[in-house]
Amino acid sequence: VRCEVVAVGSELLLGQIVDTNSSWMGEQLALAGIDSYFQVKVGDNQGRIVAAIRQALERSDAVICCGGLGPTQDDITREAIAEVLGVELESRPELVAVIRELFQARGRSMPANNLRQADVPVGAGFIPQTRGTAPGLICPLGGRVIYAVPGVPHEMRDMITRAVIPDLTARAGELATIRSRTLRTWGLGESAVAELVAPRLEALDAAGGNPTIAFLASGIEGIKVRVTAKGTGPDAARVAEALISSEETQLRALLGDTVFGIDDDNMEVAVSRLLVSAGATLGVAESLTGGLIAARLTAVAGASAWLRGGIVSYASEVKRELLGVSDGPVVSEEAVAEMASGAARALGATVGLAVTGVAGPTEQEGQPVGTVWIGLDLTRLGHGGAVTTRQLHLPGDRERIRQMTVISALDLLRRALLAAAEADS
Amino acid sequence: VRCEVVAVGSELLLGQIVDTNSSWMGEQLALAGIDSYFQVKVGDNQGRIVAAIRQALERSDAVICCGGLGPTQDDITREAIAEVLGVELESRPELVAVIRELFQARGRSMPANNLRQADVPVGAGFIPQTRGTAPGLICPLGGRVIYAVPGVPHEMRDMITRAVIPDLTARAGELATIRSRTLRTWGLGESAVAELVAPRLEALDAAGGNPTIAFLASGIEGIKVRVTAKGTGPDAARVAEALISSEETQLRALLGDTVFGIDDDNMEVAVSRLLVSAGATLGVAESLTGGLIAARLTAVAGASAWLRGGIVSYASEVKRELLGVSDGPVVSEEAVAEMASGAARALGATVGLAVTGVAGPTEQEGQPVGTVWIGLDLTRLGHGGAVTTRQLHLPGDRERIRQMTVISALDLLRRALLAAAEADS
Repeated sequence: VRCEVVAVGSELLLGQIVDTNSSWMGEQLALAGIDSYFQVKVGDNQGRIVAAIRQALERSDAVICCGGLGPTQDDITREAIAEVLGVELESRPELVAVIRELFQARGRSMPANNLRQADVPVGAGFIPQTRGTAPGLICPLGGRVIYAVPGVPHEMRDMITRAVIPDLTARAGELATIRSRTLRTWGLGESAVAELVAPRLEALDAAGGNPTIAFLASGIEGIKVRVTAKGTGPDAARVAEALISSEETQLRALLGDTVFGIDDDNMEVAVSRLLVSAGATLGVAESLTGGLIAARLTAVAGASAWLRGGIVSYASEVKRELLGVSDGPVVSEEAVAEMASGAARALGATVGLAVTGVAGPTEQEGQPVGTVWIGLDLTRLGHGGAVTTRQLHLPGDRERIRQMTVISALDLLRRALLAAAEADS
Repeated sequence: VRCEVVAVGSELLLGQIVDTNSSWMGEQLALAGIDSYFQVKVGDNQGRIVAAIRQALERSDAVICCGGLGPTQDDITREAIAEVLGVELESRPELVAVIRELFQARGRSMPANNLRQADVPVGAGFIPQTRGTAPGLICPLGGRVIYAVPGVPHEMRDMITRAVIPDLTARAGELATIRSRTLRTWGLGESAVAELVAPRLEALDAAGGNPTIAFLASGIEGIKVRVTAKGTGPDAARVAEALISSEETQLRALLGDTVFGIDDDNMEVAVSRLLVSAGATLGVAESLTGGLIAARLTAVAGASAWLRGGIVSYASEVKRELLGVSDGPVVSEEAVAEMASGAARALGATVGLAVTGVAGPTEQEGQPVGTVWIGLDLTRLGHGGAVTTRQLHLPGDRERIRQMTVISALDLLRRALLAAAEADS
């Protein structure tokens, strides 16, 4: 099965919004084993949307239209799809009822325009809305299919995962139930992950290829390993989930603590879970990352339960006065250890995490750009916790060095908390 | 003139990289008054790249291919363009010389593959490389034209600004020299900016439309006002620059201190210049933004000259102990004022900036999500500087509230420093 994405919205062409939706859908299609050879952005113009959809259907079996399902007059993806199908739109009473209820539940009166979102091309199916007011569309056309999903990222992601990918895999002749789970790893390159997992790939191939395994690089956020399983029979979903769980156990045995989460987990969520489960709080001291570590951690809702705060010690005097760092070089093993302990002490936290280093553009204290120290104080955690440090030599420009330092520090913290929890159990 | 963008790279389709290049090019085309109705992403496959270029040329006068000009075997944009043109590639000795020199200057030996980057379709022109090893291409075909630029963002931006936009505007019949400058504003919506600038739009229209003015929204980063001027005669560039400078003066008189910079300036660069010119240093205290303000400021190279550091006071005890905030609610005018003063004192800075508020997902201290206080302590700056506060009620989700708080706080600091500098002069 081949599927293209058509992203609708003049703001995308004008560069007012970066089209992250298409990237995300591209990744999901790749992980589901669906080929995608083109992606197109088109403005809010019915003729051009129609042309883009028609052309996508000439090249591919399916097209996902993203955006243009809102209530306003420039939201015309519904009309464009109806034109491609050669049918009228009809208002669906069950969708009208849902939209009315959503407004009532929020205590707001419904603008009449919103009823346009209940319009569906005659003969087409829809994807029930669970998060917004716009339902999605599933519109078969001959042997092909047009999907429509909203451009609001969390509504789009929900409908792609819940309805579009399962429908596509079913159309691929997979009439069985398909389930998948993604293991997220950090610390190894794609080829190293593939090498570790090679025994499983061979065993699954020999056993008939169910489940299957796919890899995807996610920049500095690591390598994703996706397990996809097919279930058949009356208990298909349970069969598929059982295959996945069994395979996850085997993969975790091979990949060890490089696995930091599954599916939508990111590194800060992994860290937050370990801190909560240890009953510990965290204090952060940062120099070259200038607050990026704390900013990522505070993006997790509920961070106040385990994050005490952070100190951005950009000036050396701040390192000495607030964190108690001794005189001497501030890009050093001694300084980062003192920063970690100082962060825990000054912020009243169980665990202290610190980074110092040279982000560039020029060297500092005779240390080359890319020299980074990470420090961790686990002494208040029990389990024989100690102060540990690690040195990194990072390539790239200022921004890349900063970002790599952030994810490296979070991963070091994660592994240390994991080891402490294992020592404890 | 109509121009499309074709972004080349399988990693774009797979979602491994978000295609920010196309967004940036779309914005530049819009600001130059060039229509762009479609953008396409295509993988590293010669047949499909050729099909994408051919189709773009059916719909538009020009196409910009971005990416696929590297030295490796999967970089095949050059070959695809030659196929569309129906010509061979030829190695250009002047480009070979430049590539050899670049490697020699870096003290590295040149892999033979890199010489592929000196290949140019017979009869085509090239855009000299100034930052990387890949030259760009300018390939006329009948009355149309195919451009190629590298996918490395800073190389791409340089070539689009320096060569592609001027070439496109020249082809639009503008054989004169075109220059432009973008005023960046913050604090007003697009319609408010347009209303303020309306007298100039009318005056310019009446005077023959040189220079011209265009607006572009950039999300929470404000509204851009671009002035484009045409110069003719032997002194064309100087004539165009003079027209722009004169118009900039008029626009600044209308827009006042909503203008925070020109062209590539962002808000943190504007703040950094004002701090340097005041000889002042800054200390930041953040709760709901969790380090985002400090992280943006430390993205500016050389920030150590004026940034002392920051305190992320997520826990209330940290606000009280490190910043000296009194007992009582921490989302309040009193608390944010004490945080600002505490940041300046604890970090040894001239100026203190602080934010506190409710990012959600749930209310806090009985205050609804989106309640934000910004505080500023300028008492150490002289000029009768005082402690000032401002309250905001921000819509949106947790991440949007955090980002809006960051830019609002930086803008408040910018305006206060500007006012202090004016009082001083």
